Amino acid sequence: MTETNFKLIEHQALLIVISGPSGAGKDTVMQSMQQRGMPFHFVVTATTRPRRPNEVHGKDYFFVSKDEFARMIEADELIEYAVVYGDYKGIPKQQVREALASGKDVVMRIDVQGAETVRKLAPNAIMIFMTVDNEHELERRLRERKTENAAELALRIATARKELQRIEAFDYVVVNADDHLEQAVETIGAIITAEHQRVKQKAVTL
Amino acid sequence: MTETNFKLIEHQALLIVISGPSGAGKDTVMQSMQQRGMPFHFVVTATTRPRRPNEVHGKDYFFVSKDEFARMIEADELIEYAVVYGDYKGIPKQQVREALASGKDVVMRIDVQGAETVRKLAPNAIMIFMTVDNEHELERRLRERKTENAAELALRIATARKELQRIEAFDYVVVNADDHLEQAVETIGAIITAEHQRVKQKAVTL
Repeated sequence: MTETNFKLIEHQALLIVISGPSGAGKDTVMQSMQQRGMPFHFVVTATTRPRRPNEVHGKDYFFVSKDEFARMIEADELIEYAVVYGDYKGIPKQQVREALASGKDVVMRIDVQGAETVRKLAPNAIMIFMTVDNEHELERRLRERKTENAAELALRIATARKELQRIEAFDYVVVNADDHLEQAVETIGAIITAEHQRVKQKAVTL
Repeated sequence: MTETNFKLIEHQALLIVISGPSGAGKDTVMQSMQQRGMPFHFVVTATTRPRRPNEVHGKDYFFVSKDEFARMIEADELIEYAVVYGDYKGIPKQQVREALASGKDVVMRIDVQGAETVRKLAPNAIMIFMTVDNEHELERRLRERKTENAAELALRIATARKELQRIEAFDYVVVNADDHLEQAVETIGAIITAEHQRVKQKAVTL
């Protein structure tokens, strides 16, 4: 038998999309993954919405003006963008391409509608739907956030409810139950580990 | 908004098939999973081959006579059986059905040919192909085992080589590199965790 250095798994950088209704805890989970030093590129989203007190520009989001956002759209610099509750949010293209090209897995957080757009662009993306145990819990979280007025809150709740029905468009569902943040983060880690072991891996192009 | 106790993930017991060429370390990995107390039902295979010194009847294998094995075949008590290097090996059906029905994940170790039979019977099984880094390594492990005579060894090496080409029939590949047993076990754990989070889970029937 001759020695053959067969390589059974080609390393393939993955695009992991974390989505789910507002209030499911996408931001918290992303922050926890970053704090743990998980070896991924965490996409920084550009937004025109005001910065919340605990948020850092360039880390949590790129906080940009509406004029700057309009320029990015014109220059085709965004993978996807949407008006979310009156504010613009979009994913800058270049950072994702560069990270994938360097062999790094890319993790992006995006709303449900945006996730479906990304899936069309990148059918090989790994789509994770984050949610909570029940609707009641989701409503409570949205109320507690206290960042919205009554009308905005009602809108978020109605939207979240509708988004929960979009779960079929995703590959995985992760329940981010109260006091079980760590478990949700570990589950996402397991999903990424498992996806790297797939016999049939396909490159993500954007 | 009315409270709805929506249940997004129905718990579905999984059938996990660990296969791969002789020498890849299937037995060692299974033993390690059991020692860690992983909460699965580990299928005990019936075999007519002689017991190795470190093996325990009813735990590692059911060591049965050829007459008893013939009876099991006649009574249709086996999911699958095969003549492997002159000895019979088979998976008793009842224990798998009972474990799945009780909601427990079932892990079975089986040779590559047998795995393909199981896949036909249970298309929803999770198929893991275990292997080593390269052919040279596989050969070395088979030689070191010293349980076979020269002719048997040559046969095992030729078979292993052919089996490596069957990888496309599997869902996942796990490399069980020397001194990285723990990593292989953890990777299998991650695969099982991830599979439980799939949006589209299908019941295994046998």
